[in-house]
Amino acid sequence: MTEKIRIGIVGYGNLGRGVELAVAKNPDMELVAVFTRRPVEQVNTGEQGTLVLNVSKAHEYTDQIDVMILCGGSATDLPQQGPEFAAMFNTVDSFDTHSRIPEYFALMDKTAKAKGKLAAISIGWDPGLFSLQRLMTEALLPGGKTYTFWGRGVSQGHSDAIRRIPGVKNAVQYTIPISAALDRVRAGEQPELAVGEQHLRDCYVVAEEGADQDRIAAEIKAMPNYFADYETKVTFITEEELLREHSQMPHGGLVIRSATTVRRVEHHQVVEFSLRLDSNPEFTASVLVAYARAVYRLHREGKTGAVTIFDIPVGYLSMDSPENLRQQLL
Amino acid sequence: MTEKIRIGIVGYGNLGRGVELAVAKNPDMELVAVFTRRPVEQVNTGEQGTLVLNVSKAHEYTDQIDVMILCGGSATDLPQQGPEFAAMFNTVDSFDTHSRIPEYFALMDKTAKAKGKLAAISIGWDPGLFSLQRLMTEALLPGGKTYTFWGRGVSQGHSDAIRRIPGVKNAVQYTIPISAALDRVRAGEQPELAVGEQHLRDCYVVAEEGADQDRIAAEIKAMPNYFADYETKVTFITEEELLREHSQMPHGGLVIRSATTVRRVEHHQVVEFSLRLDSNPEFTASVLVAYARAVYRLHREGKTGAVTIFDIPVGYLSMDSPENLRQQLL
Repeated sequence: MTEKIRIGIVGYGNLGRGVELAVAKNPDMELVAVFTRRPVEQVNTGEQGTLVLNVSKAHEYTDQIDVMILCGGSATDLPQQGPEFAAMFNTVDSFDTHSRIPEYFALMDKTAKAKGKLAAISIGWDPGLFSLQRLMTEALLPGGKTYTFWGRGVSQGHSDAIRRIPGVKNAVQYTIPISAALDRVRAGEQPELAVGEQHLRDCYVVAEEGADQDRIAAEIKAMPNYFADYETKVTFITEEELLREHSQMPHGGLVIRSATTVRRVEHHQVVEFSLRLDSNPEFTASVLVAYARAVYRLHREGKTGAVTIFDIPVGYLSMDSPENLRQQLL
Repeated sequence: MTEKIRIGIVGYGNLGRGVELAVAKNPDMELVAVFTRRPVEQVNTGEQGTLVLNVSKAHEYTDQIDVMILCGGSATDLPQQGPEFAAMFNTVDSFDTHSRIPEYFALMDKTAKAKGKLAAISIGWDPGLFSLQRLMTEALLPGGKTYTFWGRGVSQGHSDAIRRIPGVKNAVQYTIPISAALDRVRAGEQPELAVGEQHLRDCYVVAEEGADQDRIAAEIKAMPNYFADYETKVTFITEEELLREHSQMPHGGLVIRSATTVRRVEHHQVVEFSLRLDSNPEFTASVLVAYARAVYRLHREGKTGAVTIFDIPVGYLSMDSPENLRQQLL
């Protein structure tokens, strides 16, 4: 391997730092620079000696970076950064605002195509690997049912919702699959499950001094959409305990397709894909980096515009040759 | 949907009959004919009114069949039928003689390319979906370990090996993953496992009248490669019981990738793909049929030669449009 794939990162939060780690694990890649909006002198670059630059310098690097991995958030960063960078670089992002994917895809497709670039959008695990699994298993087993379970993992949205309640200083909420439901699905039953039958919500809350804990717990449990339809457990803990026990970002989940194929008797066929992640951002970063390799290769073959995980042959993710892959992994 | 994808089947054993069932579940497909080497008048076509023809008639159907699904065995059928049919039709097969895949790929690639056809080889679940999972997760998580567990399921090779022992009338062998090993792998331990630590072998044997059961059991357990390295359980049963309790073809298994990503602490990341199949041939058939759709589409886009599961974007498996897939499944 002579030429390395030259990677850039936009955004230096948890995801960007995960990408930095993941690039280091892939010998066919090198990290050129991280671009951030923060004042560069305030950024801790760790021990890796990473070049950190202001995002305004990115346009000077168009010849030195093969794929730019966009690590901003979907709410405000990516709708603006996505097209801005897709006009200059091949990109990979983890855009996850589900309802806006068609609109974002159209924008990225148009922008990238006009500039001869390739943009892979909504890469990660959900959207991403879970989507791939849903599509694949629905196509393999028509007439069945697909179930997605999330967790055990921290839901940022639900944690934020608790923090907005008066008297709450801090909070972490874990989404947890209900094992009784999981067992029924795995057994091939194909049950109809209400949202509250699939997941329970486990909340660790730091109350402000003197706040009424009963009132806070009642307000959490009554919150529509977020908690009211679920079995919700609320535990009050100290801030120290929260930081010590609940500052990791584990996550995961399962996509299960259950269907029957029938000859004389009914045959249950169950396909399951699951993730158990100690670090959600580091795993998502690993997915982004592998898809950056695919983007690099597809672009070299002349592909431009926007693509999703559905469009990319899995063989493009590997640094190995098709011949070796057929011989060793097929 | 106006034009249906016109499917042909070569071989009318368990797999061919599974394909017949699977095609009926896909509204964008129709089964044109099944081609068999057996005398047509001896073939039971079931209730579906399927057209069954002698394999010598296949060449008359080149304009009427879009994709031919080859359901013969890998030992003798496919090495001969594969290139023969790939010269006339787009094909999908489940060639699974691992060591001969490179040679078979080269032959199919050359033949199909010369005639402007597309041939997808080694489609199924192993090789097939398991291979895809191995490739994908190794690319996502470099520096980890991949484990494949098979079962609980019938191993034809091991059942046959038992049947060759003098005094054995019939036998069925189940390969079963050892749950202690599975638990360690799932927990992110990355253990080194000897073959006998991953699977145990559960044998149901019908002895001939008067045969020495102790001698048979000892011979089974001592058989090199097949049983000697494994915990092997032998149970003698009657022929009636074997037919009643052990004539189904369940199978399945798991591919697990375990790796760590590291920042301050070590983060275990575990990705698992598993199948629990009541009918191995019917599930394999479902995979072949979904990939027939992909072959049809790729060929219409001008792709020729041989491909494997690594080369085919998963989006091509679905009968839905890319726009709908992005909106509904991503």
